[in-house]
Amino acid sequence: MQRYFVPKEQMTDTYVTITGDDVKHIIKVMRMTIGDELICSDGHGRTVRCEIEKANDSEVLARVIEPLIPNTELPIRVTIAQALPKGDKLDYIVQKGTELGAQAFWPFSASRSIVKWDEKKGRKKTERLMKIAKEAAEQSYRERIPSIETPLAFSKLLQEISGFTKTIVAYEEEAKEGRLMTFAACLNELHHGDSLLVIIGPEGGFTTEEIDAIQRAGGAPAGLGPRILRTETASLYALAAISYHFERMR
Amino acid sequence: MQRYFVPKEQMTDTYVTITGDDVKHIIKVMRMTIGDELICSDGHGRTVRCEIEKANDSEVLARVIEPLIPNTELPIRVTIAQALPKGDKLDYIVQKGTELGAQAFWPFSASRSIVKWDEKKGRKKTERLMKIAKEAAEQSYRERIPSIETPLAFSKLLQEISGFTKTIVAYEEEAKEGRLMTFAACLNELHHGDSLLVIIGPEGGFTTEEIDAIQRAGGAPAGLGPRILRTETASLYALAAISYHFERMR
Repeated sequence: MQRYFVPKEQMTDTYVTITGDDVKHIIKVMRMTIGDELICSDGHGRTVRCEIEKANDSEVLARVIEPLIPNTELPIRVTIAQALPKGDKLDYIVQKGTELGAQAFWPFSASRSIVKWDEKKGRKKTERLMKIAKEAAEQSYRERIPSIETPLAFSKLLQEISGFTKTIVAYEEEAKEGRLMTFAACLNELHHGDSLLVIIGPEGGFTTEEIDAIQRAGGAPAGLGPRILRTETASLYALAAISYHFERMR
Repeated sequence: MQRYFVPKEQMTDTYVTITGDDVKHIIKVMRMTIGDELICSDGHGRTVRCEIEKANDSEVLARVIEPLIPNTELPIRVTIAQALPKGDKLDYIVQKGTELGAQAFWPFSASRSIVKWDEKKGRKKTERLMKIAKEAAEQSYRERIPSIETPLAFSKLLQEISGFTKTIVAYEEEAKEGRLMTFAACLNELHHGDSLLVIIGPEGGFTTEEIDAIQRAGGAPAGLGPRILRTETASLYALAAISYHFERMR
């Protein structure tokens, strides 16, 4: 059944009011009409099955039939802190990371990040990434739309580490030793509802100073398998492994 | 240390002869000279550390110092059978799948594959994919370059299933039930050296007839987590989960 994200305030206990581009999609593209059913989610964990009661060019009113129990969210809340990569890699990281269950994306500038975002550019890019996340969340049947932060400074990222249950930083030197132990040990210690911060370096990798700083702040360097992954692949590996670790017994 | 793939016949027990584009890369880009060390792999599992003894514009001769024990290959041999996707998605699947450890890629045409490859187009595209696989294998420190087949017919794919230890087919309906059990159970039954065929459908998914045919041929439908993954994401999820399953204890 077709799914749409609707602003929280447009979803009451009994009715959902759909506005904007989705109206055109429902009426013109999906050719739905009075009595047809669709699924709406407020993007914050509430999802309902509902039936179209009224529809015009600007608004679709749907009556709530039943709430649906969310089951497409990872049991732990994963935030991906991604050092600004080159080109359109961040678009790709957000799209795939959303499909794979990330809760939030925090771009940040590492000392080897070639790309720099000024405030204006940062705001525009962030809006673009939010759109990509919303579309990927709908397509993958997510209950939540991941949040996208405007790029933070590395020093700010370090301060945030203490707010998470666990933090790992993808580290090539660990990978070269072909060990996943740190990562697996970290996942073994996490439980339903816990939060995990996964920090990924830029194309050139982190400096040893940055790795040391992350460790002092409480992050653990972890290899993501014996092969050297590109910066845009590391977060996807981590998310897929987290899904496999926590969701295979569902 | 810089790595290069060299044709088997150019690697004896004592010497490696590097020719072609890599010579320019070694001399001009890396600015290496007599006495510098590099790593060469024959792309079939033999990797050696060697020292440059002679070098000119067309050839680099390097003396073998020691063989290196491969440790960047997945313990099971994974073949990705990917239904032809739209646009340049296959480039991306091969690049990322190589980073993540796939041994072979078999494109095939499913009934809902929109793209069709004629023989000429197929040959050119396959050559392009081989180049992508070689570069990704070097970058990710693989010991082997994955093989790329020219697109097979679905009927041919069915015949090949019996040649693998296990075969799974990514199936959305399983995913919607949010279960990874079939996939995890399959991995639990595989051992070092076994072969696994992972079959991924096109954008529109497989028809029930195709799923039935794959099952009759011995493949098991498996969900890859509760979220609906795009066709280009499914193989990456499978490979990352396989790495996590088999390599975390290394």
